[in-house]
Amino acid sequence: MINLKDYIAIIEDFPVKGISFKDITPLIGDKEAFKASIEEMAAVAKQLNPNVVVGPESRGFIFGCPLAIKMGLGFVPIRKPGKLPRKTVEKKYDLEYGSNTLCMHSDALKKGDKVIIVDDLLATGGTIKAAIDLIRELGAEVVGCVFLIELTELKGRDLFKDIPTYSILQYPY
Amino acid sequence: MINLKDYIAIIEDFPVKGISFKDITPLIGDKEAFKASIEEMAAVAKQLNPNVVVGPESRGFIFGCPLAIKMGLGFVPIRKPGKLPRKTVEKKYDLEYGSNTLCMHSDALKKGDKVIIVDDLLATGGTIKAAIDLIRELGAEVVGCVFLIELTELKGRDLFKDIPTYSILQYPY
Repeated sequence: MINLKDYIAIIEDFPVKGISFKDITPLIGDKEAFKASIEEMAAVAKQLNPNVVVGPESRGFIFGCPLAIKMGLGFVPIRKPGKLPRKTVEKKYDLEYGSNTLCMHSDALKKGDKVIIVDDLLATGGTIKAAIDLIRELGAEVVGCVFLIELTELKGRDLFKDIPTYSILQYPY
Repeated sequence: MINLKDYIAIIEDFPVKGISFKDITPLIGDKEAFKASIEEMAAVAKQLNPNVVVGPESRGFIFGCPLAIKMGLGFVPIRKPGKLPRKTVEKKYDLEYGSNTLCMHSDALKKGDKVIIVDDLLATGGTIKAAIDLIRELGAEVVGCVFLIELTELKGRDLFKDIPTYSILQYPY
């Protein structure tokens, strides 16, 4: 059994002082570790019975797109302003460091869609809370969130206690 | 047989006047079309016999990561400056509109690696030429390039005639 934490590099004070950055590039660069991570995320995700996967730019694409293909689902990207060419809904939010605005195409989801949100890492939860707001604005339901990594002491999941939330690897912060 | 072009939205004058933008979001949002696109790209890619997939941020992740998982390979991201936390190699290049710098972790590839570069779209080829330069700087070999879309009249593939290059969907520009 592969230990996925062996493939996460910890970089102190990146991108700013005080952040202990979890670098997923060794994991995704290893064929066995990348495959195992997608399989573990899919095992959790399928219990949520989604019909579509949503992932925020850019690292959400790294796990969300293979997960969508593996589960036989479509993928909806959430992107930064200026990237999506058609009509969008937008939401400004606070990041772990700095702030950002998220956009999603207005026709990307429909009422009744059962969405899982997939990202590499759950930190303070600001990005995911904004994503949930956008998804609900389009009338879809968020049936769960699946992360590779969760920084548990930051308690990001407390921002959306009503949504089943799973992570594969836990670190304190 | 699904016609993937039915799932590409054409947006004129985005992001700037004169560009006929090919929007892949309807394709990846449709479970059948997304699956078919990855299968078609994988069918081409496996003939190149790569041992690793490289894709540029962000749309290269959308196709490159599922392709890596489907082919049982690792994935190496090429990113914009400030995103990769460890030592990088960097290359500045001209875009279809504007300019950019690409970065890759210095230890991401090793001598003898056989790399395929995957991206959503081949336009003028500047991004891909820069990616090829970075990959070669690390001593790895680029055995091929696979794109979902190629804007054939821009002749991007002429920038790297020595590398087998395939696209699934062709548009004039």
